[in-house]
This record gives sequence, C-alpha cells and structure tokens, in this order.
Amino acid sequence: MTSTKTYYFTTVLRSVFTERNVEGLGAQPTYDDIGNFDDFWKVMDGPVISALFDQKWYNGENLTNDQYGYVLFENKILGLPRIRQLRVTNHSCTVHEIFQQSIRECYGPYSSSRENRSSYLPENDTITPNAWHYQTSKQLSGRSTSGLISVYGGGGFVQELTPNYNDASAQLKDLNANLWIDRGTRAVFLDFTVYNANINLFCQIKLMVEFPASGGAVPSKSFSTVKLIRYVSSMDYFVLACEVLFTAFTVYYTVEETLEIRHFKLQYFKSIWNVLDVLIIVISYICVAFNIYRQIKVGQILDELLKNQNSFADFEFLTYWQIQFNNIVAFAVFLAWIKIFKYVSFNKTMTQLSTTLSRCAKDVMGFSVMFMIVFLAYAQLGYLLFGTMVDDYKTFSISIFTLFRIILGDFDFNAILTAHRVLGPIFFLTYVFFVFFVLLNMFLAIINDTYSEVKSDITTQKSEFELGDYFQKSYEK
Amino acid sequence: MTSTKTYYFTTVLRSVFTERNVEGLGAQPTYDDIGNFDDFWKVMDGPVISALFDQKWYNGENLTNDQYGYVLFENKILGLPRIRQLRVTNHSCTVHEIFQQSIRECYGPYSSSRENRSSYLPENDTITPNAWHYQTSKQLSGRSTSGLISVYGGGGFVQELTPNYNDASAQLKDLNANLWIDRGTRAVFLDFTVYNANINLFCQIKLMVEFPASGGAVPSKSFSTVKLIRYVSSMDYFVLACEVLFTAFTVYYTVEETLEIRHFKLQYFKSIWNVLDVLIIVISYICVAFNIYRQIKVGQILDELLKNQNSFADFEFLTYWQIQFNNIVAFAVFLAWIKIFKYVSFNKTMTQLSTTLSRCAKDVMGFSVMFMIVFLAYAQLGYLLFGTMVDDYKTFSISIFTLFRIILGDFDFNAILTAHRVLGPIFFLTYVFFVFFVLLNMFLAIINDTYSEVKSDITTQKSEFELGDYFQKSYEK
Amino acid sequence: MTSTKTYYFTTVLRSVFTERNVEGLGAQPTYDDIGNFDDFWKVMDGPVISALFDQKWYNGENLTNDQYGYVLFENKILGLPRIRQLRVTNHSCTVHEIFQQSIRECYGPYSSSRENRSSYLPENDTITPNAWHYQTSKQLSGRSTSGLISVYGGGGFVQELTPNYNDASAQLKDLNANLWIDRGTRAVFLDFTVYNANINLFCQIKLMVEFPASGGAVPSKSFSTVKLIRYVSSMDYFVLACEVLFTAFTVYYTVEETLEIRHFKLQYFKSIWNVLDVLIIVISYICVAFNIYRQIKVGQILDELLKNQNSFADFEFLTYWQIQFNNIVAFAVFLAWIKIFKYVSFNKTMTQLSTTLSRCAKDVMGFSVMFMIVFLAYAQLGYLLFGTMVDDYKTFSISIFTLFRIILGDFDFNAILTAHRVLGPIFFLTYVFFVFFVLLNMFLAIINDTYSEVKSDITTQKSEFELGDYFQKSYEK
Amino acid sequence: MTSTKTYYFTTVLRSVFTERNVEGLGAQPTYDDIGNFDDFWKVMDGPVISALFDQKWYNGENLTNDQYGYVLFENKILGLPRIRQLRVTNHSCTVHEIFQQSIRECYGPYSSSRENRSSYLPENDTITPNAWHYQTSKQLSGRSTSGLISVYGGGGFVQELTPNYNDASAQLKDLNANLWIDRGTRAVFLDFTVYNANINLFCQIKLMVEFPASGGAVPSKSFSTVKLIRYVSSMDYFVLACEVLFTAFTVYYTVEETLEIRHFKLQYFKSIWNVLDVLIIVISYICVAFNIYRQIKVGQILDELLKNQNSFADFEFLTYWQIQFNNIVAFAVFLAWIKIFKYVSFNKTMTQLSTTLSRCAKDVMGFSVMFMIVFLAYAQLGYLLFGTMVDDYKTFSISIFTLFRIILGDFDFNAILTAHRVLGPIFFLTYVFFVFFVLLNMFLAIINDTYSEVKSDITTQKSEFELGDYFQKSYEK
Ligand SMILES: [Ca+2]
Repeated sequence: MTSTKTYYFTTVLRSVFTERNVEGLGAQPTYDDIGNFDDFWKVMDGPVISALFDQKWYNGENLTNDQYGYVLFENKILGLPRIRQLRVTNHSCTVHEIFQQSIRECYGPYSSSRENRSSYLPENDTITPNAWHYQTSKQLSGRSTSGLISVYGGGGFVQELTPNYNDASAQLKDLNANLWIDRGTRAVFLDFTVYNANINLFCQIKLMVEFPASGGAVPSKSFSTVKLIRYVSSMDYFVLACEVLFTAFTVYYTVEETLEIRHFKLQYFKSIWNVLDVLIIVISYICVAFNIYRQIKVGQILDELLKNQNSFADFEFLTYWQIQFNNIVAFAVFLAWIKIFKYVSFNKTMTQLSTTLSRCAKDVMGFSVMFMIVFLAYAQLGYLLFGTMVDDYKTFSISIFTLFRIILGDFDFNAILTAHRVLGPIFFLTYVFFVFFVLLNMFLAIINDTYSEVKSDITTQKSEFELGDYFQKSYEK
Repeated sequence: MTSTKTYYFTTVLRSVFTERNVEGLGAQPTYDDIGNFDDFWKVMDGPVISALFDQKWYNGENLTNDQYGYVLFENKILGLPRIRQLRVTNHSCTVHEIFQQSIRECYGPYSSSRENRSSYLPENDTITPNAWHYQTSKQLSGRSTSGLISVYGGGGFVQELTPNYNDASAQLKDLNANLWIDRGTRAVFLDFTVYNANINLFCQIKLMVEFPASGGAVPSKSFSTVKLIRYVSSMDYFVLACEVLFTAFTVYYTVEETLEIRHFKLQYFKSIWNVLDVLIIVISYICVAFNIYRQIKVGQILDELLKNQNSFADFEFLTYWQIQFNNIVAFAVFLAWIKIFKYVSFNKTMTQLSTTLSRCAKDVMGFSVMFMIVFLAYAQLGYLLFGTMVDDYKTFSISIFTLFRIILGDFDFNAILTAHRVLGPIFFLTYVFFVFFVLLNMFLAIINDTYSEVKSDITTQKSEFELGDYFQKSYEK
Repeated sequence: MTSTKTYYFTTVLRSVFTERNVEGLGAQPTYDDIGNFDDFWKVMDGPVISALFDQKWYNGENLTNDQYGYVLFENKILGLPRIRQLRVTNHSCTVHEIFQQSIRECYGPYSSSRENRSSYLPENDTITPNAWHYQTSKQLSGRSTSGLISVYGGGGFVQELTPNYNDASAQLKDLNANLWIDRGTRAVFLDFTVYNANINLFCQIKLMVEFPASGGAVPSKSFSTVKLIRYVSSMDYFVLACEVLFTAFTVYYTVEETLEIRHFKLQYFKSIWNVLDVLIIVISYICVAFNIYRQIKVGQILDELLKNQNSFADFEFLTYWQIQFNNIVAFAVFLAWIKIFKYVSFNKTMTQLSTTLSRCAKDVMGFSVMFMIVFLAYAQLGYLLFGTMVDDYKTFSISIFTLFRIILGDFDFNAILTAHRVLGPIFFLTYVFFVFFVLLNMFLAIINDTYSEVKSDITTQKSEFELGDYFQKSYEK
Repeated sequence: MTSTKTYYFTTVLRSVFTERNVEGLGAQPTYDDIGNFDDFWKVMDGPVISALFDQKWYNGENLTNDQYGYVLFENKILGLPRIRQLRVTNHSCTVHEIFQQSIRECYGPYSSSRENRSSYLPENDTITPNAWHYQTSKQLSGRSTSGLISVYGGGGFVQELTPNYNDASAQLKDLNANLWIDRGTRAVFLDFTVYNANINLFCQIKLMVEFPASGGAVPSKSFSTVKLIRYVSSMDYFVLACEVLFTAFTVYYTVEETLEIRHFKLQYFKSIWNVLDVLIIVISYICVAFNIYRQIKVGQILDELLKNQNSFADFEFLTYWQIQFNNIVAFAVFLAWIKIFKYVSFNKTMTQLSTTLSRCAKDVMGFSVMFMIVFLAYAQLGYLLFGTMVDDYKTFSISIFTLFRIILGDFDFNAILTAHRVLGPIFFLTYVFFVFFVLLNMFLAIINDTYSEVKSDITTQKSEFELGDYFQKSYEK
C-alpha cells in the first residue's frame, strides 16, 4: 500500500498548499502561519488559489484547456473545491452583569447548540449569492469533523470555487469585501480531492482554519492519500489474483479452525496462538468485505461526478474507510510477524527468555499499577500547573505523552521553567527522580531478579541430574 | 480550571503581541528580537500598538465605536495600557580614576538605592506631560517585579496610552523624539489586562524590556490567564453547587479527623496517610477562604474600573493570587491521586515493591548525599567556567538544571566546546563518566540488590513453612 | 586522507551551490528549497550559474582570462558542466476508463522501459540545438544513478553549458522558453568536477532534481571530494615511500602467514586472530592494486581532457572507486585497532570480561532473534501506518532506523501524533514499553547474570586453593 | 567572578556584532553567515562598523563628543580597532605538471613558511597607505592565534580604523576598491577591546574570518569578558579584605601542612586528603601571585593607552591570563567541594558505597581499556568514513566527542545516512549495539556485582557476631 511515490505525492501536495509564502515585501505568512482574519484572506487569495488554479507554464505560456484544472500540472482536481463556514450566534454566551454595559456582543465557543443558521445576505451580492445561506448537514451530506479546538457539525455556509483563477479570486475578494467571515465565525474549511492518474492515487485534502472564541486563528490540515481504484495496470491484476488466492486460503483456514474448535471446545481458546489465528481470520474477512464494498462505491461516486463536473465531489467518507482498511491490514501483518514466535519458541534460550517474561509478568503488572498512579498524578499536576501556557501540557492526554517522552530524554525544560520559575523545576526534578531513577530501576530489578531465578532453576535441574549420576557412579564402585 | 480554550487564549495573545514583525523591507525585528533602543521603539510603535488599537476590518472598513478597544476583535482592554519606566541616576557607580578623564558618566545596574527619581521634563511637551515625573510605588499602588536581570521597584515614570491608534502612536513618537528612554533607563514595562467575555477569562499582560548596564535590551513577557469572575453561566452555578458540597465534606472530615486525633493523640501523626488527610483538609480551607475573598475583591476592582474607564486597571495582585490558588488546587488533586496508594497497597506484589522502596530508602538517601556533593561541585565548576558565555550556565541554579538535563540526554555540547576548546570537553566527559556511568549505576545496584533481598526473604518465609510442614509430615509417618 | 582542508573544501562548495538564495524581494528559494519547475529555473539561472561563472571581483573589476573559469576564485572547473534530462513517454501508464474522457495524458513514474527517447526539437532553436535529441547511455558513457525516488539510466537529453556567464544564462533561458522540461521530465542532473590546485583535491559534483509523477520537484545533491593525483608535493613523496614500505611488509607477512597455514592447516583458521591477519593482508593487496590502477587511469583522463577542454569531463567512475578505496582503507585501520585486543587480553580483568562476553554470546544471540522479530514487526507496522505521511517512516528501512533511534531517545513524537491521533500514541507507547522497558532490560539481565557467574567461578577456584592450603596447615600442626 | 551582568555583557556584545543583518532587500548575511569575499565586505562596511561607530540617538539626534566612541552607548572602545590580514605567497604550492599549462597561480593553505611578507601597495593610495606593508609579529607585539583551520602568526598587514563612522567606512571602501583581500589572503582579524565603566568589565573582542585554500570564507569570533580592574567600588574593597584574609589563612595552612609533612614524611602523601590539601595551597599561591601581577600590569597598559589614545590597545595577553586565573580559581572551588567527602565518609552507608567504588575501580579500569579500544576504533572509522562531509566527524577529536554523545542519545543520524547510504547505518547500528548495549551493560554488571558482594560481606560480619552470640547463649544454658 505504502511506497515512496505515495509519500512524495502527499509531501508535494502539502508543500504546495501550506508552505508557500504570500508574495510581497518583508515577512509574509504561509498557510501554517495564519494567525488572524487578515492572514487568512491573504493566504487564501494568494498561495492557495495559485496552487489550485495555476494558469501558466514557467515560460509564461498559457495552459491549454486540457492542461487546466491540475495542481502542479499532474493532479486533477475532482469537481469543485468548496469553502465551508461554521458560525455561532451573537449572545450565545452570557456576559456578566458588570460588563453588560460595555460589552454588547458575545460569541461563545463553537457547539452545535450555539450554531448560527440564519442567512446574512449583503445587498446586491451577485458574485457569491449562495455563500450567505445556511445549508444543513443533510443538504450537504456532510459529517462532523474534529479540529484542534472543537468538533464541528457537517452543515454551514458554503461557497464552491469556480475552477478558474480569476473567477475564484473574484469570489474570494467578494467574500472578503462583504465580511463573510466575522466575529461569529468559528471554523472555515476548504475541501477538495485531487486524482493523480500517473500513479493512480487520490488525495483528499482538507484545510481547516479555526477561529477560537479568544480571537485569532488556528490553522490545521489533513492530506489523506489513498488508492481507491484498485485494478488498472497489469500489476494491479496480479495483485487481484493474489487477493483471490488469499480469500481462498482464508476460507480453507476457517474450515480447519472450525473443526479444531469443535474438537477441543473451550480448550481451544486457552492457547494464545489459536486466539491469534481466529483474530487473523476475522480481520481477513473484514478486509475482503470492505474491498468489495469499496469497489462498488467508488464506481458510483465517480459516475455521479462525471455526470456533473460542476459540483463538489465528496470523497471524505470513502477515504476515511479506506484508511481504516489500510490500518487493519497493517495490524494483520503485524500479527503475522508475531506468529513467527510460535515457530522459534522451541529453542532452549528462547524458553529461558520467555519463561522469564511470563514469570515476571505478574510483578511487572503490579509494578505498572504503582507506576501508573504516580505517573498519572504527575500528568494531572503538569496539566493543571502548565496547561494554560505550555503546548506540551495543553490537554491531559498530551500531558501524559509529554511525561512519557521525558523518560526517553525528549523534553523542553525551558518551556516549564518559563511557565513557572519555581514550580517548573521542582515538578521536573521530582518527577525525574521518582519515575526515572527509582521506578524504572525497580522495573529493571524485577526482570533481572526473575532472570537469575529462571536460569538457576534450569541449572539446578541439570545439576541434580549430575548429582544423581555421581551417586550412581559411586555406588557402582 | 485549565482547558483547551484557556491555552489558545494565552497563545493567541502571546502570538499577536510578540511574534509579529515590524513592517518594512529586509529582516525586521519582532518583540522577542528587541536588542537595542531602536528596536524597542520600532516594535512599540509598530506591532504592539497595532495589536492594541486595531482600527479596521480586514476589508478596510472602519470599526464602529462598539467594536473599538478590543484586541483581535474579541478581547476587551480593561482601562488604559500603561508604560512605566525605571531609571538609575548618573554617577550611580564609581569610575576608576584612570578613566575619570575620558568616561564622564556612569549608570550602574538597577538597584532601588540607585534609582533616579528626578523629573527631566523637556521644554514644551504637551502630548505626554506626565511621563517625565517620577511617581512612587505608593502613588501607583505598584509592587516589585522580578525580571531576568534584576528585581524592580513599583514606582517609576508612567505614561498611560490613549485608547486610539493615532493618539497612542503620537504619544510614543513624542516620547521617542524627546529621548524618554536613555542611558539611565533600566527597564520599561507595558502593562494591561484584557477580558474575553466569550469565554469569561482575563489575561493580565506584562511586556518587560530590560536595558542592562552593559547596553542593549533584553525583552521578556508574561501572560497570565485566569478566571476571575466565577459564576456566570449555568455550568458555573453547577460548579458552585459542587463547591458548596465540597465545603460540607471538608467540614465533615475535619470533625472526623479531629476526633481521631483526640483519640490517638500523637500516635495519629505516625501514619503517613493521616498526615496526608490533614494536609488535604488544610489546603481545602485555604481554597475556600481564597474563593470567597476573590469573589469580593474582583467585584470591587471592576466597580472602580467601570466608574473610571480612563485609567490603568491593576489586576496584577489578583491575578497573582488566583494563580497561586490554582497551583494549590493542583497540588491538592495531586495528593488525592497519591491517596490511591492507601487502597492498593494490600496487594502482595505491592507489598514486595513498597518494602523494597522503604528498605533501600536509607541507602538511596546516603547515596544521594554523595551524588549531590559531586553534582553540586560540577554545577559550580560549570557555572564558573562557562557562565560568562553559555546561556545554560549563566546562573548557578540554571547550571544545576543543565547538568541534570545532561543525565537525561538533553544538552548542547557545542556550546561548551565553543566556550572553551579544552576545558569544555574535559568537563563534559568527566562529568558524564562519574555521574552518568558510575553513580547512576550505583543507584541501580542499590535498588536491584534490595529487591533481590526482599524477594528472597519472602520466599524464605514460605520455605520455612514448607520445611516445617515437611518435618511434621515426616514425624507423623 | 581526511583532514580539515578536505572538510572545508566540501563544505564551501556545498554552501555556494545549494545555500544561496535567488536574489529578489520576499522569500526566495535556495537550491535546497526547489519545489516546482519555476523554482528550478530560478535557481539554475540564478545562484547556480553565478557560482559557476562568476565574472567579477568584489570591487566590480572584471576577471582576467586567467582568473576565469574558477568557482570561488580557487576551484578550476574541469571541462564543461553538463545538464542532462531523463523523460518518460506520454501514455506510459494506464488511465482508468472512467477518467479516459477527462484525463488525456499520463506520464508514469520513471523506469527504463517507460523512458522517452524521441527528439522534440522546437522550430529554429539555434542556441541549444543538441538539447532536444536523445543520446544513449553508451554515447554518453554514462552509468545509472540512484536518486531519492528511483534509479535513473545513463542516457538522456544533454546540454553542455558554455563556460561564460552570459552564454550559459542565454542557454538556460532558451531551454526555459522552449519548455525543455515538461510533464514528461523525471530527473535533471547538473554534473561537473572542480579541481583545487592549492590543496590538490578534486570534487565531483552532482546536483540532481527529480520531478516525481506526483508533480513538484525533489532536489538532492552529492559532493564527492577525492585526492586523485597522489604524488605532487614532497610530503606526497614521503607518503609514497611509506606505501612502498607498506607493500614490502605486506609481502613479508603474506609469506609468514602462508607458512603458518601450511603448518597448522585448517587449525589455523580456528583462531580469530589469524582470520583477522589474513583479512588485513587481502585488503592490503586490494589497496595496492587499486592505487596503481588509479595512477594510470587518472593520467589518461586528464590527458584526454587537456586535449579537448570544450567537452564534459567525466570523473564519476574514478571518484566512485576512489571513495570505495578510502572506505576499504578505513576498514583496514579499524581492523588494526581491533588487533590490539590480541595483546591486552592476557590481563586477568580482561579475561573475566571477555569470558563474560563470550559466555553470554549465545543467550544474547537467542535474545536478539526474539528482539528482532518484535522490532521488525513494529517497523513494518510503523511503515504501513505512517509511511504516507511521516518522513521517518517513508520506507521500510528508514522505519527500522527510526525505531532504533527511538531506543536512543531521538524521535519526533508530534509527527506520528499528527499522522494519526489515536494509533500514533498507541504505536509509540506499546513499542517503548515492550522494546525499551522489557526487552532492553532483559538484555541487561543476561549480561549481569553471566558476569556474576563468571566472577564467582573464578573466586571459587581461588577459594578451593585457599581451602586446600588451610587443610594443609591444619594438618601440619 | 561570574554573574548575570557578565553574561549579559558578553551576550549583548556578541549579538550586536555578529547577529545583525546587512541592510537591504531579500536575504542579507550577518557576520555568522559570511561565506565569501563579497559577504565579508558587506558585513564589515555594514553592521560591524555601524555597531562600532554609531553616530545618532534613536530619534536621529547626533551624539555629542562625549557620547561618541561607545558601543551601544555604554561600552567605551579602548584605542583604535585594528584589522589585520595574513597572506600566503603565490606559488606556495606545487601544481601538478598536467595542470601547469592551465593553472598559473597556486596559493597553499596557511603556514608560517608560506607567509607572504612583501608589500603590494597600489598606486596613489592616500587613505590607507600603511595597510599594504607587512609588519612582523615583533613590530606588532602580536602572538599566534588558533583559528578553525590553522594556527596563525602574529604579524601581518595592518590597518587601524579611524574612530568615526564616515572615516572608517571610507577606509574600508578604499581597501575594498584596491583589492586588499585577494586569493593570497588566508585570514583577517578585527581586534578591539571595550570597557564598560557601569559594571567595570572589559571585553576583548576578536572577529576572525579565515579564507581557506579551498575558496570561500569561514567566520569565527571570540568575546572574552574579564574584570581587570579589581578594586573600584566599596564592595570591591570588601573583597580585597577577604583576599587578604584568604592569603593569611593560606600561609597558616602552609605552616601546618609543612609541619605535618616533616612529621609523617612520605607517609603523609599516602592520604588522598593530604594531597588535596597541598594542591589547594599551591593553587592559592598561584592565584595570589597572579593577582598582584595583574594589578601592576593593568595599570601600566592603561597608562600607556591614555597617553596615546590613537593606537591599538592590546589586551589580549592580559585577558588570556585573567581567564586562566579564573579557571584555576574555579578548579580550586571544585576541589573544596570534593573535600566535603572527607567529613561525610564516616557514615556507614557511605562506607558501603565508597568501598564498592574503590573495590570495583580495578575492574572498571580494565573494562575502560577494553571500552576505549573499541571506542577509538569506531572514532577513527567514523572520521575516515564521514570526515569529508559531516561536521560531527571533521576531525578525530570531534569524532570522539560525537561518538560519546551518541551514547547519551544526542546525534544526527540523517547526516551520516546522507553521507553514505549503506555504510552510515551499518556504522551506527553496530556501534550502538556493541558500545551502548553490550559494553555499557557490562559496566553496570561490574558495579552491580561488586555492590552485592560488599553488602553481603558487611552482613556476614554482622551475622558472624550474631552466630557467636548464639553459641555463647547456647553454652550458658
Ligand atoms: Ca535524548
């Protein structure tokens, strides 16, 4: 599934949309630098639509009609790119009475209940007449998206971009001039999908800029590369043959394992290897089923698209499930690797090692509980102490990862020193002392001790033999 | 207390004030790059007041009066921003006789005794007439602030900025033209507080630029986000209910523990768990008391502010204590996590582990003393050898942290190699050899050995039993 | 072979060709930033040919004829720099039927079978008439080169650059204007070799820009510094004397070892030290042979070059083998260091340590197999899960290195967190738990236990002696 | 000696001279970016002399005569800054016969024997008439300086800069126009010393740009901050009092230790603590002696300087020794920390730990030898394989440090992967396997085992007592 060309496909697209600076004097933002309304419009009406609707060759020659509509000359944009906005209503939060005099408007953080669904059409807008009417999630057949700050609904105010540089730029300028985005805006999405026929890959792209209730803007992005059309080249048909073979094998093993289960009953599930086999078989069926479903569904969507090229083409759903499918396959391959253990475990050294592991498992578990309590206590503490200021502690789960990374030696001490000159170092030093020095060494002690035990057990068994032999020999004298 | 919105609030504000470049050709400074007088004025009369007094929407439309006075359209500036300057007197240090001929002026490092309190009004300054008169700490109800280089008093030369881009810019230009800042200046503070009604959070902002006696400028900054108004939304009232419940519980446990103390007397304090309980109760009372105090005090300050909008609003004191309060709560939650140990320690594996820890505690302590001596000796050495040149050794305490980070694998070897080509590597290599290889391994040896001991003790106890059983059985035959 | 001057030679050249920005307003690319066709031409017709054909001294004075043709005034360009392009044919891949209507062209990834060998001469090109005709690998005496994305053949479309700034710039502008590079282009190479007479070193330079089938451009570069002319200065002749001496020694030892082999037969190869000796001797012969070959070959190439200065000078082959030669010498020196062990192993402590190592070798090997299975399973999983998005997992082998680096504490957690919010952390945490905590500690346990054993064995032997002595003494009483 | 103000003094000066960009459009170099002749002149006639001879206040007002001649308004430049150049002669290296036709000039790497001492005065230079005549090391009372590439002599071609922006700029422009620097130039130094009366510190500054024989330029810099005038403020006189007291104590202890030595003779030196005492006393005398010498010498130099302000003031010698003095004091303080061990070692746990350390010392040493051989073999290999390309392996000693840092988890894997796609990873993986996994674990095993032994020895001694008691008790029954 993965290969160098997939990686470079994703990378090249990410680079062209998010790493190009706005043209101009001095320090100009890229997509990743967006920090306020201004930057947003500069980047949208600059590098982003330049990348989408490039008009010329590098020598200044205009593109022909056939060449038009490609990103970087190679990646066909499917349907129209779509800008979608989500808004909250004014007075969606309560202003404390003391401020009610001076603060007249209040736009809370996004939540579906606070969503603003009313139109706000400016007079005489002929360029983007539809962008000011709310469309429900159902009308857009959208689904909810999770951003950095919140989870957003599938509806919103939508504008499709005409696939032409000048027209699209005019549309953006019109939206800009009429304040399409304002204090009520909480997120803007730019969605589109490109298809590269050279390497037969789709990339579903979502550029999301969130406008938190605190002001400013927080950009994020997602580039999902998938191979939705599976069988094109001759190599692909070879893969198809393999897949058929794989399905046949799966059926065969299903029968075999079923027989075994019938024979051994519950006893069967006591062996970890059998459980593994069943798991792999189940995953295989899921994969096969999805493969067939995808084949049908992709055909439908592409057919629809070809009939109506002038509308947004929604590949989000399919891409999402294709990625899940890839992940499941990856997991199945992982399990297959683990199965190798079944065949190497007869070796004597192996036995010794695996005995050690299984014997110390209980102690390690007990220890892990103890470790977890201290660990979580520190994660919570770090989150509460530094969460408002330091990126690495901004949520509880990220705080957990951060503390885990400290153990491996990857941390930013200055961030917590800056956050709090006294508590920062105390937090860090005590954490490292307890968790790194004391608890991790306990870990080692457990394994070390168990290994010695196991090894001496094995040696003892041997020496008993030898002792026996010795006595026998003595006797025979 | 902490949540994603708090984090983004702080981040967005920090970004808008300190990460925007001055507009212009070539490489222009941001607030964080300030390195001399020139940069200071460029940044102040550039990105900083642009962020404070934005006048227009992104489409060029002017803001209405209602929309005016917000940072990033959402964050109301409370009162007027205030610039404060601290100066030292000329001849506040002694010039050696050899130089007295050629060096006529001497402005020492800041200290309260060297502070210059005399006015230095230029002729005919009508724009900023008050900026040239010293006001005492009492007049400003200020308190001392610690910067990177020194701790600064609460008085100084003060200018409040008129809340309007053009006026504020004129004020800054006037101060610039009349050399408000000169060789005697040791620190300039820009203080203000913003309130975001959308998410009901205050951020008290302090931009501090220190001008050390060595020339140049050293910027620093502090953004303290707190929730001073607690009870606004319905969710807040639910929290209030919980707080009342919490207070009730605290009272209940106070009674219970008091009874226990009466019964067990000093014996009571011998259990670590009881001490923990008492600690948690005490912290709870502190929190409750502060909560009430804050509620009253915030009301007072805001009332005053509303009466007189055209003056500086000082939230520093309140913010400081609110952050202390948050930290104490965080600590209380940490203790609650630790209390879990009380309930899991009955487990057998746990006993084994905790026995190990308590048994090796003495050795670990003894070892820690030894470790500390070597460690501190190296920290002192590093400070004296590299302190003038390398950031990581610039003070003794930072030198301690740096050596600690080396153990975890986070260091900048090239910095000390550049500082001293010979002593740098020798320092580093011997430190790592003694502390990392030898001493840390000792640490491990202690724990490892104790664990083996504990485990064999437990096994012995069992085998004695078994031995006993065996004898008994033999006897019964 | 290596010395500071070699390092700075390479560094200075790398810097001048790849780290200079295109001149112009705003953010301009360097060679390393090339991301599309446009950047490519800007960089080529900018910093690259400026570096190659500098015309003036820093004070604006023109260079004399003698001074012309040097990079940075010191490094003579040998022959003409050559630009070479590789193309694939249109319709070199299959477009799925559903898209055949809308996507008319298809340029697959590079492979020798897809290579486009047809001329595409534009009308009336008088400046670069030869750049549009394919030349085979044989005609160019080229060889295949491996880039980041693919391995490229030795033929292609070739343009030699006239050694003059204005002419070369005109040539590039002409290629640009006629779309020399287009959708079919898969890679462009700029090859040339410079010679620095001051320090008698050659640097063979290859700037390679790949244009993947996904669009965009991926630059890479190689700077190979070698000393091809060995005997110039008097110091070099001293080295020659040493080399002759070395050859004599090699012959002497060959005889000696041959005699030994004859005497001990297969027994001889049982000692690791003997095998090492034979290995070193074989390597020595290879080096001597190559040295002679190089001497002759360099002479030939340079002679040819001097006869015809106006053609490309191909040093690639020679440079390649010279580097292999250097590597082999480096390996020989490494083996010589290892031989020291032969002479220190008599020491008692050494025996103890080496016994430990050899005794635990079997267990360590068994363990390594176990470790490898888990390790490779994770590497595969990481590759499949994150390969499309994260640089560190883009190929299976890089995924292996990345996991290895995690063990040492060098990783980018945020990259995999961004790639997948859920699977990223799970992958990371379980990997670290199993591999870092459990398996590595097993490793330690094995060595630790073996060492104890070995040491107690040795002590037991001693104490038996002492016990014997004791009895003897008792008896004598 | 060290304090925050010293650190900021150094930092502020380093920043103003080496981190300011040349003004202009697009990407402009700072001092640290200098890469060729052009950059050198741009930076010298730009940020460097701007920093040296600032003419105006930030409001555009001209500086008065008194304010003139300071860096950043506070740091008095002592004497005149001096530019010094070192050159090699043409034909200072041999061109191979094959190139003698085409390469007519040859300027070898710098060495004192190749130095070019001939004048090269251009016609009619009235602005910088002296810059073209060689002056010997003796005439300049210079001493040799070691740069990144070579060690440079103390003579050269010298130009002192007139202390005025316009004049100095004219001088630099004249040198530029007449090609003062050309292919023969190997290094240019800008030397000057500033004195800050506010904090009574000197900073001796040396900006060195080397022009290697490979072309290009390599900048480096040194900022040495010292306190040469010791006794100015009242605090300084208190320090003087302490120093006198310290000297008295030193004399006292000298007498005491002398008596002890007389009494115990050679026995005295067997205790490590006595050796330490003697060492500290010797160091103390060195410090006292230097202190007096410095006091006299500084006075002389400053007197001379004041008499003739219009010449270069050479503080290099004094600064050098003052830094040595500081380092020696730092070392003495380090020893004082170590002496604490004498007083804590009576503790029982301590004994156990120190016994462990001393008992395993022999094994650790033996092991270290083994470790060193492998380590050095790898360092040599890394140097030979990657030295031409990777900064971290450019010399043998840096290669040693790099391998050491790998053990601590600080490395740049991609650098060696780029340098050699195959040998890079093999080198890295085998190194980590042998050194990190195998050898370091051996280290741990040694310490671990010794600790167990020591502890059981101590326990055995106790149990023997107990056994004795037991028998006694049995007997008494
Ligand atoms: Ca690390």
